[in-house]
Amino acid sequence: MAHKYVYLFNEGNGTMRELLGGKGANLAEMTNLGLPVPQGFIITTEACTRYYQDGEQVAPEIMDEIFEYLHKIEAINDKELGNPAKPLLVSVRSGAPASMPGMMDTILNLGINDEVAAGLIAGNDDPKFERFVYDSYRRFVQMYSDVVMGLSKKRFEVIIDELKEKKGVQQDIELDTEDLKEMLVRFREFYKEQLGCEFPQDPNEQLVGAVKAVFRSWNNERAIYYRKMNEIPSHWGTAVSVMPMVFGNLNNNSGTGVAFTRNPATGEKGLFGEFLMNAQGEDVVAGVRTPSNISELQQTNPAVYDQFNTIATNLEKHYHDMQDMEFTIENGKLYMLQTRNGKRTAAAALRVACDLVDEGMITKEEALMMVDAKQLDALLHPQFDAAALKNATAAASALPASPGAACGQVVFSAEEAIQEAAKGNKVILVRLETSPEDIEGMHVSQGILTVRGGMTSHAAVVARGMGTCCVSGCGEVHIHDEEGFFELGGKKVYRGDWISLDGSTGNIYLEAIPTVPASLSGNFGRFMGWADEVRKLGVRTNADTPRDAHQAFEYGAEGIGLCRTEHMFFEADRIAAVREMIVSDTVEQRKAALAKILPMQQGDFEKLYEEMHGMPVTIRFLDPPLHEFVPTNPEDIKALAEEMNISVEDLNQVITGLHEFNPMMGHRGCRLAVTYPEIAEMQTRAVIQAAYAVIERTGMDVVPEIMIPLVGEIKELQYVKKVVVDTAEAIIAEKGKPLHYKVGTMIEIPRAALTADEIAKEAEFFSFGTNDLTQMTFGFSRDDAGKFLGEYYNKGIYENDPFAHLDQIGVGKLIKMAVALGKETRPDIKLGICGEHGGDPSSIDFCHRVGLTYVSCSPYRVPIARLAAAQAQIRNPRD
Amino acid sequence: MAHKYVYLFNEGNGTMRELLGGKGANLAEMTNLGLPVPQGFIITTEACTRYYQDGEQVAPEIMDEIFEYLHKIEAINDKELGNPAKPLLVSVRSGAPASMPGMMDTILNLGINDEVAAGLIAGNDDPKFERFVYDSYRRFVQMYSDVVMGLSKKRFEVIIDELKEKKGVQQDIELDTEDLKEMLVRFREFYKEQLGCEFPQDPNEQLVGAVKAVFRSWNNERAIYYRKMNEIPSHWGTAVSVMPMVFGNLNNNSGTGVAFTRNPATGEKGLFGEFLMNAQGEDVVAGVRTPSNISELQQTNPAVYDQFNTIATNLEKHYHDMQDMEFTIENGKLYMLQTRNGKRTAAAALRVACDLVDEGMITKEEALMMVDAKQLDALLHPQFDAAALKNATAAASALPASPGAACGQVVFSAEEAIQEAAKGNKVILVRLETSPEDIEGMHVSQGILTVRGGMTSHAAVVARGMGTCCVSGCGEVHIHDEEGFFELGGKKVYRGDWISLDGSTGNIYLEAIPTVPASLSGNFGRFMGWADEVRKLGVRTNADTPRDAHQAFEYGAEGIGLCRTEHMFFEADRIAAVREMIVSDTVEQRKAALAKILPMQQGDFEKLYEEMHGMPVTIRFLDPPLHEFVPTNPEDIKALAEEMNISVEDLNQVITGLHEFNPMMGHRGCRLAVTYPEIAEMQTRAVIQAAYAVIERTGMDVVPEIMIPLVGEIKELQYVKKVVVDTAEAIIAEKGKPLHYKVGTMIEIPRAALTADEIAKEAEFFSFGTNDLTQMTFGFSRDDAGKFLGEYYNKGIYENDPFAHLDQIGVGKLIKMAVALGKETRPDIKLGICGEHGGDPSSIDFCHRVGLTYVSCSPYRVPIARLAAAQAQIRNPRD
Repeated sequence: MAHKYVYLFNEGNGTMRELLGGKGANLAEMTNLGLPVPQGFIITTEACTRYYQDGEQVAPEIMDEIFEYLHKIEAINDKELGNPAKPLLVSVRSGAPASMPGMMDTILNLGINDEVAAGLIAGNDDPKFERFVYDSYRRFVQMYSDVVMGLSKKRFEVIIDELKEKKGVQQDIELDTEDLKEMLVRFREFYKEQLGCEFPQDPNEQLVGAVKAVFRSWNNERAIYYRKMNEIPSHWGTAVSVMPMVFGNLNNNSGTGVAFTRNPATGEKGLFGEFLMNAQGEDVVAGVRTPSNISELQQTNPAVYDQFNTIATNLEKHYHDMQDMEFTIENGKLYMLQTRNGKRTAAAALRVACDLVDEGMITKEEALMMVDAKQLDALLHPQFDAAALKNATAAASALPASPGAACGQVVFSAEEAIQEAAKGNKVILVRLETSPEDIEGMHVSQGILTVRGGMTSHAAVVARGMGTCCVSGCGEVHIHDEEGFFELGGKKVYRGDWISLDGSTGNIYLEAIPTVPASLSGNFGRFMGWADEVRKLGVRTNADTPRDAHQAFEYGAEGIGLCRTEHMFFEADRIAAVREMIVSDTVEQRKAALAKILPMQQGDFEKLYEEMHGMPVTIRFLDPPLHEFVPTNPEDIKALAEEMNISVEDLNQVITGLHEFNPMMGHRGCRLAVTYPEIAEMQTRAVIQAAYAVIERTGMDVVPEIMIPLVGEIKELQYVKKVVVDTAEAIIAEKGKPLHYKVGTMIEIPRAALTADEIAKEAEFFSFGTNDLTQMTFGFSRDDAGKFLGEYYNKGIYENDPFAHLDQIGVGKLIKMAVALGKETRPDIKLGICGEHGGDPSSIDFCHRVGLTYVSCSPYRVPIARLAAAQAQIRNPRD
Repeated sequence: MAHKYVYLFNEGNGTMRELLGGKGANLAEMTNLGLPVPQGFIITTEACTRYYQDGEQVAPEIMDEIFEYLHKIEAINDKELGNPAKPLLVSVRSGAPASMPGMMDTILNLGINDEVAAGLIAGNDDPKFERFVYDSYRRFVQMYSDVVMGLSKKRFEVIIDELKEKKGVQQDIELDTEDLKEMLVRFREFYKEQLGCEFPQDPNEQLVGAVKAVFRSWNNERAIYYRKMNEIPSHWGTAVSVMPMVFGNLNNNSGTGVAFTRNPATGEKGLFGEFLMNAQGEDVVAGVRTPSNISELQQTNPAVYDQFNTIATNLEKHYHDMQDMEFTIENGKLYMLQTRNGKRTAAAALRVACDLVDEGMITKEEALMMVDAKQLDALLHPQFDAAALKNATAAASALPASPGAACGQVVFSAEEAIQEAAKGNKVILVRLETSPEDIEGMHVSQGILTVRGGMTSHAAVVARGMGTCCVSGCGEVHIHDEEGFFELGGKKVYRGDWISLDGSTGNIYLEAIPTVPASLSGNFGRFMGWADEVRKLGVRTNADTPRDAHQAFEYGAEGIGLCRTEHMFFEADRIAAVREMIVSDTVEQRKAALAKILPMQQGDFEKLYEEMHGMPVTIRFLDPPLHEFVPTNPEDIKALAEEMNISVEDLNQVITGLHEFNPMMGHRGCRLAVTYPEIAEMQTRAVIQAAYAVIERTGMDVVPEIMIPLVGEIKELQYVKKVVVDTAEAIIAEKGKPLHYKVGTMIEIPRAALTADEIAKEAEFFSFGTNDLTQMTFGFSRDDAGKFLGEYYNKGIYENDPFAHLDQIGVGKLIKMAVALGKETRPDIKLGICGEHGGDPSSIDFCHRVGLTYVSCSPYRVPIARLAAAQAQIRNPRD
C-alpha cells in the first residue's frame, strides 16, 4: 500500500499532532466526538517533509491523493470546487505540531473565480450579498498574490488608496459593489502586469498553489526564527488543512463567534465570549459593529446556544483544560471551526488549575504543568488599573527590565529621589544609567527609567532584585537634567511631572495611570505548596538587605544563595571608611579602616541571619574592583580629599592607579583577598561574630557559608581559605562553643570549571556564577554586548540573550564538566547557581537535569523558581 | 636486611641521580672511574622523604647508619671527626636529583671546635695559618647558626661591622687573627643570648644538626618555588653528601681551581679555567688575588696539570658533554670535588654540539637535546661589546621584554624617532607606554623603553615581533617629556642623551655601550638543518609587513600563520580612509571609504605572498575594536574633524559611541564583520585579487588562508564565511581560473573550544589564539593582570606568567578538547597556534603532544620554535 499523505478529518484523532498538526488533530478529534465540523481533509507534515526532500516539489502520487480527498469532501459536503451551481470554497491553513501563531500562511475563499462569483450571487437574494462576494473575491486575489505568488499585499493597498481617493472616502467599507468590481479588475491587471499572466481562474491550480505556499511558509524567516526560539525542530514540517468555508454572513440567521469555557482574565467557570450575527470573523476583529456577549445568544437563539454550551463543556472535559473555540452559524446551523487550550492571565491560570483539580479533572502534577512559571511574576507586582490603562497611550517602549507597573513624579538623581520620597512623594528615577551609588535612591523610587543599558545592566539587575519596576535602554529619551527636563517624542517632561512605567511590557506613559497592588489569592499558596511537594531542586534567594531577605522568606526561599557584601559597602555611613581603606598606604592603615567597617558589616549579617530563621546564608566576599568605590568627577574628588585629609593630587594618583582597561577582567574577586588578605579577615570576623551574636540572642541555628568569588586556580582558593579558616577558628576557640560554617567558591571563570576536580578539594560547595561564566565563555561583557547583539538577533546568529537564558550548549558544557569533576572529588558537594539564570525557567530546568542542589534568584523570582523546579521534576524525574 | 639509606661514594654510580642526587651520583661516578675524590658518603633522597614522613625526625636506624658510615670514612681518610690530633672536617651539602643551584643549604668546615682549632694550629707552621683557622671557625659558626638554627647571617654582619668600625678598617680581610678571635667570641655570645645555650662543641651534634638542616632546606620557600617553576616533584627530596674538607690554602704547594673542558663562551675545544695557589674556592670568587689561567699550571706544576687534563678529557668522553669541574690541590695532591655538564653561551652550545657530533661522541638527536632552545635568541640579536659592558653599571633593571642590545639617543615620541632616524641618528624611544599609533616610530628605533606594561604589553609584543630590543615596565623612570628629560635614580636624562638597553636582561644603562651585530656561524645552519629533519610540527611566522615576512623566511618559517591586517590600517597613508569608514553613517559611505583602502590592502598582501614564495599565508580579518583607530586627545580630534569635514561635536559623538567598558570583551573580531559585512567583503577582495596579481606576475603558487577571529558560535562563522565565499567565488568566476583558498577560524573564545565539533563543520582550519584564550579562561586581561600578578608570584599561587608559558592544565584542557572535537568532525583539519605561546619551548612541546599541525611565532622566534619542535619529537615521538 502506498504511503498515506492525506487524511479526512474522521480518519485522524487528537493524539496525531505530529502528523496532522495541532489544528488538524483538534479538528479530527472534534469530528470523532461527533461535533459539527465542516468536513475537510489534512495533508500531513510528512508530505511537507517530502516536499522539501523532493526539491520543493509536490510528488505526483501526493498530488493525486490530494485530489482524491478533494473529491471525497466534495461528496460529503455536496459542493464542488469550481462548480457555479454548488460552489465549494475552502480555506487552506497551515498547522504545525506545536503552536506557531501567525508564523505561517493561510488562504481563505479559495475556489472563487468569475463563474463561481456569478453563481454565488445568483444563488442569493440579498442585494448586499453581491458586495460580499466581490469583497471576498478581491480579498482572495490579494491573499493569493501575496502568499502564493510573492506579490506584497502592500502593493495592492496602493490601488485601494487610489480608489478611495478617487471616491473621496476614508474607509474600505464606504466602497460600494461597483467600486469593488473596479478594484478586482485593477488587481487582476496589476497581477498580469507584474507576473506576465492572468490571475488563475482554475480552482485546482489555485489549490495546488496554495498548498505549496503553505509548505514554503514553513521556512519563511519568521517561522524559522520562531522555531529556533521555541526549540521546535525544523524537520517536523507543517500540515495543511483544507476545509470548506462556512459563511456567518450569509444572512441574519448566520453569525460567528469566539468563546472560552472559563473567563480567561479571572478563571471563573462559565462560557465567556462574544458573537456577531450576519458577520464573518474579520468583522468581529475590525470592530465595525460591537459584538454581543455570548450570553445573549441564549436569548436570541437558545437552541444554538445550548448546543454550543454542551459542546464547550464536553470539549473541556475531553481536553482537561479550558478551551478557546471558534464557531460559525450558517443559516441557523452551528459549525465548530477550531478548539484549543485557551490563553489566560496568571490569576486565571492559577484559578483554573486549582478548580480543575477540585473538579477531579486533572492531577496536581497536571495542574503544575498547566501554568507558565514566568506568568507568576505578574501576580507579585503592582499592575495598572485596567480601566485607566485602556485610555492611555504609550509614548515609547523600551526594554521590560523589571516587571510591575509604577506611577510617580520625575526626578533626575538618587539624592532628589531620597528627598522627595522623604516628603511622602512617589517618584520615578530617570537616569542615563545607574551606578552602585544610586542604590538608596533606587530603593525609594516607584520605578526606574534609564536611557542606556540592557536587560542585565546595573539598573535592571538591581531593580529586579528589589522588585522595583524598571524600563531600561530607552534611547529616545534625551535628558537635560541641568535644565530639569527630559525630551521624549518631541515632548518636554519636567522634574515633578507625573509619568508611568510598565516594567512588564517596557511601555512608558507621559501621564499618571493609577496602579493596583499585587494580591496573592488563596490559590497561590495552595498551588505553590503542590510545587514544593514535587520539586527536588532547592530554591534560595539572592539578597543583600534584610528587606530583600524578608521578602524572599515570605515567597518561600530556603536560604540565601548569594549575599553580595559590596552592596553594604556603598551605604552612606560606611563608604567613608571604605574609601579610607582604599587610599591606605600600609597594611596597618588598611586594618584601621577595616576595623571601622567590621561592626557595621557584622550588624548586616546579624539581620540577614535573623530574617532567614536558621536557614543557610551564603555570603560572598568582596567582589568588585576597588575603583567602583571612588568618585569620578572632580568635585566629588575634591570633597573626598578634604574628608580624607589628603591632597587632591594624591587622591587623583590613587584613583588613576585603580584605573583598569577591562574592569571585568581586572583586580576583583578573590584577587582582592589575595592582595589584601586583611579584607577577607575582617569579613570572616563579621560573618562568624554575627553568627555567635544571633545564636546567643535568639537561640536560632545559624549556618554561614562563606563564598570566595572569581577563583580560577586551586591555590588562590587555598590561600584565601586559609585566611578565612585561621580567623574563624581563632574566634571559635575563643568562644569555646562549636560553630558550623562552610567555605566554598563561585564557579564563574572557565578555568574553575575546567579544574573543578582540583578546586573541590578545598571547596565545600560550588555556586555557579553564570553571569560572569557566560561573559568569559562567550568572550563578551554584558555592558558592551548591546553594541552588536541587536545585529546578531537580526541575522539569526543568536536566538536569545545568553544573559537571560543559560546557553546550555557552551556554558552548559562547562557546568556539566564542573558538576562531574566536582562530584568525582567530593561526592556530597553542594551545587548551586546564583547568576541571573537562577530565576529563569528554561535555565532552572537545565539546573535540575544536571543535578544541582539549588538555584538562587532574586526574591521576586522565588515563586517562579519553585514552580519551574517542580515542572522540571515532572518532565525529568530525578532522586 | 634493613633498608639502606647511606652510601659510600664507591657504592654508587652516575645513574643513581634519583637516589643520590646529581652531585652525589657524579662523585660516586668519579670514584668508580678511579679519580682522586676525597672519600665521603651520601645520605639518600629516600632518607629525606622518610624524614618528612616521620614528622621531620631522623629515624634512629638512619642516625645509626650515618654514624656507621662516618666511621668508615674516618678509617678511609685516616682522620677523625673531633680528634684534635688528626681532625676530620667535612662539608655537608645538598644534592637534588635535578640541578637546583643555590636553592638549598650547604655547611662547610663542620667538625671544628675549640680543641680541633687548637689542634689544627698546632699541626701547621705557617704563622698565617692561625688566621685561616679562626676565619674558618667563625665562618662555620655563622653558617651553622644561620642554616641550622635560623639565626640570620645578617645579624652577624652587624657584629662584623662594629668590629671593623672599632678597628677603623673597610674590608674583612684587613682584620687580623686577634680580631677574628674576638669576632668568634662575640658570635658565640650572640648565639647564646639569642638561643639560650652554648654553640655546640660536639662535632656529632653539629653533624646531626647540619643533616637535618639540609633536609629542611628542601622545603624552604625558594626551593619550593624553583621546583614548581621547573616542574620538579616535591616528593623527590634531596640527598646529603658528607665529604672530607681538603684545603687548597694549606701552603704554597696547595691550590684550588675551576675549569671547563671547552671554552664556555666560544665552545672551542681545550681546557679553559683558572686556578689560584694557596687559596680556597671563596678566594677565587672574592677577587682578592687575580687567579691564573689554567694553562700556567702546566708550567708551574706539570704533573698535576697533566693528571687534571687527562681526567678532564676522560670525564668529557665519559659524560658525552662539556664538563665544568672543581678541583683542589692539597699539599701537591690533586682532588676532584665536583664535575657537571658546563653552562655555556648560545654560540658555544652550538659549536660544542656540532663538534661532539663530528668527534663521534654523540648523535644528532643528542646534539639537539643539548642546546636550550631559548638560548638561540641570543644569536639572532645584536649584543653589547663584552669588553665595553664590563665597565658599565646598570642604572636600573626592568622587564626583559624583547631581547638584544641597543644603544641610541633618547627621544620621547614616535614622531621624533622618525625625524631623528631620517637624519641617520640612532634613537631609543622612551615612552610611558606605546600604542598602535607609535608603530612607525618603534620600527625606526634601536630600542624601546617603557615605564608601564608587562611582558605582553603592546610595546613588548610589537617589539618582539620586530626583533627590536625592548625593556618594559620600568616604574623608576619618571618622564617629563614637556621639559625634555626623564629621571632615573636621581639623574636627569635629556632628549638626545645616549643610553643603552639590554632587552635580554632588562638592564638600563645611562651611557653609550657599543654593540656588535648578530652573526650566525656556519654551525647555526647545520644544527637547524638537523632540527628540521627531526621535527614533525610545522613552524610558521606571525608577520604583518614584508620586512618581517622576509626575516622569517630567512629564519626558516614555512608560511605565515598570522597576518594581523589591522596593523596595515594604522599606516599614515590609510588611517584617514579608515577613520572615514568609522564615521560613516550609511553602508554606502562605508563602502566608499573601504574602496579607498582596498588597493592599499591588496598591495600589502601581494608583497607578503611574494616574500613567502608560494607557502601558505594566513590572513586574519580585522580584529580590534574600532575605537583604537580614532584619536583620543582634543587637538587630534579637532584636526580629524576638519579633515573629515564634520563638526567636532559629531565626531565626539561617534567617539563616545565607540567607548567600551571592557574593550577586550567588546565589539571586535568577527563581531565587526557581522555588523559591517562590507569590511569582510573588502578584505576578501584584497586577499583574492592580490593572489591573482602575484600568480600572474610571478607564476608562483599562492595559497591564501582567510582566518575569521573571535568566533564563539558556529552561526557567526557561517555568516561571515558566506560573505567571504560569495565575494571570492564572484572574483574567481570573473577571472575564469581556479584559485585555492581556505577559510578557517581562530579558537580564542572558550565557547569556540567547547563547540569545536560544530565549528569544524565550517572551518577548514583552527588557529589557537592563546593570548585571548588565556585571558578568557583565566578571566583576567593581560593589560590589567599586572596589578595583582606580582602578589600571586610572591604567594606562590602562580608559578609563571600564563601569557608567556601556556597553562597546560586549564587552557590546555580547552585546547585538547577543541583538537579532539575538531578532528571528530573533520579528520584532516589543519591545527595551528598563533598566540605568543607559539614561540615558547614548553608551550611548543605541548602543541607537539596534542597533535597540532604547526606553531606560528614572531620571526625572531622561528629558529627557537624549529629547535623546540625537534626536541619535542625526540622526547615524545609522533607520526
